[in-house]
Amino acid sequence: MAGNSFGEILRLSTFGESHGPAMGGVLDGMPAGIWMDLQQVQQALDRRRPGQNTLTTERKEQDVVRFLSGFHPEEDESGRRQTLGTSIGFIIENEDQRSTDYQAIQDQYRPSHADYTYEAKYGIRDHRGGGRSSARETVCRVVAGALATQLLPADLRILPFVERMAGIGIPADASFDPQAATAHITGCPHPETAENMRGQLEALKALGDSAGGVIACQVHGVPAGWGEPVFDKLSARLAYALMGINAAKGIEFGSGFAGADSRGSIQNDAFIAPGQTATNHSGGIQGGISNGMPLFFRLAFKPIASIKQSQQTINRQGEAVEMQIEGRHDPAVLPRALPIVEAMVALVLADFYLAQRIQRTNS
Amino acid sequence: MAGNSFGEILRLSTFGESHGPAMGGVLDGMPAGIWMDLQQVQQALDRRRPGQNTLTTERKEQDVVRFLSGFHPEEDESGRRQTLGTSIGFIIENEDQRSTDYQAIQDQYRPSHADYTYEAKYGIRDHRGGGRSSARETVCRVVAGALATQLLPADLRILPFVERMAGIGIPADASFDPQAATAHITGCPHPETAENMRGQLEALKALGDSAGGVIACQVHGVPAGWGEPVFDKLSARLAYALMGINAAKGIEFGSGFAGADSRGSIQNDAFIAPGQTATNHSGGIQGGISNGMPLFFRLAFKPIASIKQSQQTINRQGEAVEMQIEGRHDPAVLPRALPIVEAMVALVLADFYLAQRIQRTNS
Amino acid sequence: MAGNSFGEILRLSTFGESHGPAMGGVLDGMPAGIWMDLQQVQQALDRRRPGQNTLTTERKEQDVVRFLSGFHPEEDESGRRQTLGTSIGFIIENEDQRSTDYQAIQDQYRPSHADYTYEAKYGIRDHRGGGRSSARETVCRVVAGALATQLLPADLRILPFVERMAGIGIPADASFDPQAATAHITGCPHPETAENMRGQLEALKALGDSAGGVIACQVHGVPAGWGEPVFDKLSARLAYALMGINAAKGIEFGSGFAGADSRGSIQNDAFIAPGQTATNHSGGIQGGISNGMPLFFRLAFKPIASIKQSQQTINRQGEAVEMQIEGRHDPAVLPRALPIVEAMVALVLADFYLAQRIQRTNS
Amino acid sequence: MAGNSFGEILRLSTFGESHGPAMGGVLDGMPAGIWMDLQQVQQALDRRRPGQNTLTTERKEQDVVRFLSGFHPEEDESGRRQTLGTSIGFIIENEDQRSTDYQAIQDQYRPSHADYTYEAKYGIRDHRGGGRSSARETVCRVVAGALATQLLPADLRILPFVERMAGIGIPADASFDPQAATAHITGCPHPETAENMRGQLEALKALGDSAGGVIACQVHGVPAGWGEPVFDKLSARLAYALMGINAAKGIEFGSGFAGADSRGSIQNDAFIAPGQTATNHSGGIQGGISNGMPLFFRLAFKPIASIKQSQQTINRQGEAVEMQIEGRHDPAVLPRALPIVEAMVALVLADFYLAQRIQRTNS
Repeated sequence: MAGNSFGEILRLSTFGESHGPAMGGVLDGMPAGIWMDLQQVQQALDRRRPGQNTLTTERKEQDVVRFLSGFHPEEDESGRRQTLGTSIGFIIENEDQRSTDYQAIQDQYRPSHADYTYEAKYGIRDHRGGGRSSARETVCRVVAGALATQLLPADLRILPFVERMAGIGIPADASFDPQAATAHITGCPHPETAENMRGQLEALKALGDSAGGVIACQVHGVPAGWGEPVFDKLSARLAYALMGINAAKGIEFGSGFAGADSRGSIQNDAFIAPGQTATNHSGGIQGGISNGMPLFFRLAFKPIASIKQSQQTINRQGEAVEMQIEGRHDPAVLPRALPIVEAMVALVLADFYLAQRIQRTNS
Repeated sequence: MAGNSFGEILRLSTFGESHGPAMGGVLDGMPAGIWMDLQQVQQALDRRRPGQNTLTTERKEQDVVRFLSGFHPEEDESGRRQTLGTSIGFIIENEDQRSTDYQAIQDQYRPSHADYTYEAKYGIRDHRGGGRSSARETVCRVVAGALATQLLPADLRILPFVERMAGIGIPADASFDPQAATAHITGCPHPETAENMRGQLEALKALGDSAGGVIACQVHGVPAGWGEPVFDKLSARLAYALMGINAAKGIEFGSGFAGADSRGSIQNDAFIAPGQTATNHSGGIQGGISNGMPLFFRLAFKPIASIKQSQQTINRQGEAVEMQIEGRHDPAVLPRALPIVEAMVALVLADFYLAQRIQRTNS
Repeated sequence: MAGNSFGEILRLSTFGESHGPAMGGVLDGMPAGIWMDLQQVQQALDRRRPGQNTLTTERKEQDVVRFLSGFHPEEDESGRRQTLGTSIGFIIENEDQRSTDYQAIQDQYRPSHADYTYEAKYGIRDHRGGGRSSARETVCRVVAGALATQLLPADLRILPFVERMAGIGIPADASFDPQAATAHITGCPHPETAENMRGQLEALKALGDSAGGVIACQVHGVPAGWGEPVFDKLSARLAYALMGINAAKGIEFGSGFAGADSRGSIQNDAFIAPGQTATNHSGGIQGGISNGMPLFFRLAFKPIASIKQSQQTINRQGEAVEMQIEGRHDPAVLPRALPIVEAMVALVLADFYLAQRIQRTNS
Repeated sequence: MAGNSFGEILRLSTFGESHGPAMGGVLDGMPAGIWMDLQQVQQALDRRRPGQNTLTTERKEQDVVRFLSGFHPEEDESGRRQTLGTSIGFIIENEDQRSTDYQAIQDQYRPSHADYTYEAKYGIRDHRGGGRSSARETVCRVVAGALATQLLPADLRILPFVERMAGIGIPADASFDPQAATAHITGCPHPETAENMRGQLEALKALGDSAGGVIACQVHGVPAGWGEPVFDKLSARLAYALMGINAAKGIEFGSGFAGADSRGSIQNDAFIAPGQTATNHSGGIQGGISNGMPLFFRLAFKPIASIKQSQQTINRQGEAVEMQIEGRHDPAVLPRALPIVEAMVALVLADFYLAQRIQRTNS
């Protein structure tokens, strides 16, 4: 119940404060005998890493993951190692712990941050960089997700991309390849829109302000039959996983909120073959279970709460104060959130993939 | 992992197919010694019950809950009984099981229903009325939620209402009392909008079509500090609970998707006192934890998939067929979904309420 | 955490007080498509049922289980029905609720019963027949266990028998067939010992006294590889399951306590073939995982706490009182505990059987 | 289900192979604001540490625990730090990884070890020192248990001691202080018996043989009311926790197996005051819940399976081979198992201590 674990059969438990010695976790439930490329895990981390360009925080972290257990010591010719079926332990050391940056705000609550709520909850908080509430926590999700990805069928592809940011969105009629998301620092796969976003973000950064946006995600290759009835619908578990990412404030599947204004005769997806429908307003999920069509969802992120502009707030004594947040912050969380979205989707799908092995007599 | 349980400390496990003998469940983890009014549970069920008016399904069910355990046999003068701290078992018999209605569709997949996906998952399905995938399952959620509500602090009020339906929404500048939702059969608390919705629904019903919409919900009286960091954020658990309701396709907290287009300098909620912010763009949740402001979220429902119009689909042999769905169906799920939303919110909050008792040394 | 659920993948949640309206439960996680003979469940219940002979309690209960969900409505020619993969709900009505028997002891704590401890825990108790602490609760374990048995491989046989009772044990060098346990009302498969036990039990009953004893259990047909490392060893999970049975006070595997006095050179089980060892001092479990040899364990039960002799105790005011327990009680719990032991073993093994399907890439 | 986690509210997840880079874990659910002395954790580890004397393995490990999260950075004057309420991550590096010792046995199954069963389960194993099946895993239990101990009430004392070893036991009528267990390398608190044990162990070691024995444990200061009904009885959870320790083969509470031969009129514990009984045959647990008397149980350990004598076994090809186990091994596991028993008891009790905070309305 304490909230640091995710998953049922494949279960991740994580730890780490932003400015403590290290982040890390345990991934339990990985089947034995799977050849894994641990370099792919590092590559996923690199995509999330701060300090990469002018739009991301200047914090310098190498984010090198160290695996402590769960793999057979012998490597094959491509450097892959086999899972033992035992729990996989890993840590990422925190290198750049300039916690002096944060002393000024020790006694003040940053607006729309977790400072006040953590203190209300626990009666104590590690104020250095947000402690456990920092998005630095997501580094562990990326590690586990990159392992889960290697458990999933090879033809399953999770393709998140930045669809809107800073008020600028990909035009509805634009054609683009979601895999191009990694080609631009904004994470937007439509080059023209991406350039507009970049310009707007730089303008906001210059103003000491920040932006939000929407990450959309397609998932190809999910067979029909994944997800559980009632409480653990595929959509419910994805919503649970994704709304647990810092700054996420909304999620919709298929035609989502827009579809709520439509009619059944328009929205219903007519079957044209097993696992195939004429339209995909359902976003690949019917009755909480995948129907063989691509999954599709959108995830809304609020503008990042750390802005350089002066703000009104209160201190721990309840007195009104004007505060100025120093430190290193991105103007938008979305570009670096792409590998995190991918990781959480992979963890959810891996759980259902394993569950599905035991739900039919002949499976 | 099999998806029929919800909650951690207060945990509900349910069972029942739409046309089987009964629905029921076990609610475990309720503290001992709480005086409960079991009539209130029946009243919540009555609000969800079908066959109440021209807009809801004609299925006739009395939906009488029978409690089988968990309460001391003695009643106080108001008929209340005390929880024993043991698991609470309950059943609701299914009375109106006209399953002959469903024989025609035994071999065809209704579009945007769970027929195909259940069969893909399990290799077998109870085709009578959707079996386990039927919204009839939610009767158990309402029972458990009504008990959870009586565990929560007396001043905590969960107020869901229909904000949009059939393309008609409460005007942004309208003033209304969310508690008026129960006064109109549409569940919309704004009388003029409600009447418009009713007219539109009746028109759709006459066409054999159906509508979707948006339920909004305010929750007053949640103290600061509820919710868990990282994976079990209050928003993540609410999303998990609510996206598990049949036909739910999207959820947003506070300013949600609209806020994603805004800026940090506008969206941030300035603290003006402990547990009080000048605006509430966060919807009462910051860093995944309640901040003392009212919770606010919106839940999008797709148009109900059962329509009387003829539709294209395939049968179990994969052949294209034209199908006509008979049976008893609402033109929209939203009015009857209000007590279900309330129940799921109560279950989530009760879990965090209990969790919060053990997370501080002096709590 | 509230203690009314058991199992991980196959999970049973139960409810019911001894003198409430009904006992029941939900079994979740049963795979779909398994043909089950529900008459076998009733037969298992019949073996546990009270009122069968002079050695068991005179309470009259038909103990008819009613299944409420989880099975396809159609029966095959032998009356079997197929699992749907959905949760299985069931109840057993309590018929003989002579709770007036218990009013005398409402304010006194029966020695070595749960009266005092339940009140210390919950601040309230249902005093009628022990409420939730009554062994009547085990009726639900038997139902679930009989379903789990039908999930397990057909050649897996769980064979518990009464090895010692009332101070009388099967001679160490005696030869007997454990399956003969069901042939004698004592549950002892060695006829001569069984008759001695019966005589001693009748003598104790005449004195208003009670007996304890030891149930031993062989399990044949468990393949090598079941069980989990570290915390969920097969022995640990069996101990957990079996020590949760009322009146159980000890368990040992293989040579157990006696083996603790031996030496490694004597105790070690030499492998003679894959899945076969020359001796079986390990009781079929090594490193917490089944090794292919038959499982063997012993479970010690204390003498039943309900005796007719007058006893010293205190009342709720803490005053010393002499008390006389009326009501219907067995002189020993062991004969009726055999199907309960069998059920709990089946539940544990079914969980590991399902787990093992997902722990190897090629499983 | 993968077996590397223990506990419900306070939950430990561990990782690490014997000869991998490090052991470690995550302890989640620790309440916030507790001042903890992390030196006490190291001291508990030191008591478990190998290489301390002639009776324990010669493996050289400093076993220095490094805490990575969960504590506020500031220390008080005694060097204590406060829990943050966040998950506590920790690692212990493996220093002495002489895995060459184990290459000889890579293809052979050591009798009564986990070599064969792990391979049957996973199809792969890390043969170096037993990998995950090594008792080295227990180092993480000791860390978590030492933290749990500091959560428990200060007057609660867990006192395990070696009661029997190598066939030598403390005389039934001997008087001794269980706290003296730490004063002798055998862990036996009765000096004369302890010396006899030591002599016998040294003799066995000289023969290349090994011994088993029994650890008894008293727990003082457990209030009445801890434990859960039905499946999670205090005795069931303790059995689960303790039978998960390597080489444990039996457990009994109170008079256990001996009491099973007795009568109700003798075994029943008469109440003489609230939380006090005239005798303690129940071992402090009635109806699965603590009754206020000291807990008492015994845990049987088999003789350690690693002996230097030549043994018969098979190799991975199923051929009969004679094998000689090299490496570093204790003649008995019991002395070093004392802090492990203490740790597991602390983890179980901490879970119930926290659970009890939420089970009564006024708790």
